[in-house]
Amino acid sequence: MDIVIASRNAGKIREMREALETSGLRLLTFEDLGDWPEPEETGRTLEQNAILKAAALRERFSLPALADDSGLEVDFLGGRPGIHSSRYAGPEGDAEKNMTLMLEELEGVPPQKRTARFACVIALSLEGDTRLRRGVCEGRIVEARKGLGGFGYDPVFQPDGFDRTMAELTLAEKNRISHRGKPLAAMREVLRAK
Amino acid sequence: MDIVIASRNAGKIREMREALETSGLRLLTFEDLGDWPEPEETGRTLEQNAILKAAALRERFSLPALADDSGLEVDFLGGRPGIHSSRYAGPEGDAEKNMTLMLEELEGVPPQKRTARFACVIALSLEGDTRLRRGVCEGRIVEARKGLGGFGYDPVFQPDGFDRTMAELTLAEKNRISHRGKPLAAMREVLRAK
Repeated sequence: MDIVIASRNAGKIREMREALETSGLRLLTFEDLGDWPEPEETGRTLEQNAILKAAALRERFSLPALADDSGLEVDFLGGRPGIHSSRYAGPEGDAEKNMTLMLEELEGVPPQKRTARFACVIALSLEGDTRLRRGVCEGRIVEARKGLGGFGYDPVFQPDGFDRTMAELTLAEKNRISHRGKPLAAMREVLRAK
Repeated sequence: MDIVIASRNAGKIREMREALETSGLRLLTFEDLGDWPEPEETGRTLEQNAILKAAALRERFSLPALADDSGLEVDFLGGRPGIHSSRYAGPEGDAEKNMTLMLEELEGVPPQKRTARFACVIALSLEGDTRLRRGVCEGRIVEARKGLGGFGYDPVFQPDGFDRTMAELTLAEKNRISHRGKPLAAMREVLRAK
């Protein structure tokens, strides 16, 4: 089965390929299909944004489409930046600036108050049937960037039960425990049953 | 299993009960749980609005929640009123006024140009897993109201293959062929497998 991925984010595409590419399942990106205008993320929840992106692509290409929306909720910041995570430090969506702002806002905050969670919703849009799965990964914001893997806030987020940040995990390790890997694994089972 | 229904519309609640109430499944409404503020339908699609309503109730009551969003697309009107169907003739959502306006807008339009379809999305929000099913019912807008059953635009909508309007069908007949009945039946199978 061919599935369109509604993302231009190389890190997300890599994680989706790792989680989903099995025999009989082919993931197509903007590089395969020609680029499309990115729909504005006007939803108020991860669910609404994920579905907005998946539905737009399913309609455009008449193919099943897969989209992700994710966010980082920091308890000390009252759940911010949440659905606005990628544009936390400005509209250009610069991950380095986002992390710098995050570390500044949490400067001097003790470890036990730096709890946070990544949340992710994966939407799979099929003809007349849409599946949404939510995944969460609990952890905390460390004091300084560590690691070169992953993308986004991965260098400043340490998942519970690890003494490494998300950016220090291998792709397979990250997919096993992450907010994105867990719902992707569930979606793989949905797709297998189709 | 207990499921909250995210609707105050007596007609919708009746159709949901008829389609879903089987042994082991209990549908709870605002009459059972105490009323709640209706979330604003800020979505741009039926999918987004259905999920917005279901997710809000699942969070409020920590119970699985079921929501519906539906609309009538009239080809001669370029797909209007679509997601705005219930407030077509004004914010108070008066079905009689909506039908009067519809019949006025289509006055003199010949039968073969009065084609239309009802579309409905049912959202079922569970912990970390949301299901959305879309149903469509093709038909046409008749010249004058007929029948006393159903609700909304049912008296002016004649489904393909029938010489009666939706409002002239029995509840069981309507659920078998309607935009709402078909995805509800699919959802019943999802719930049975839980």
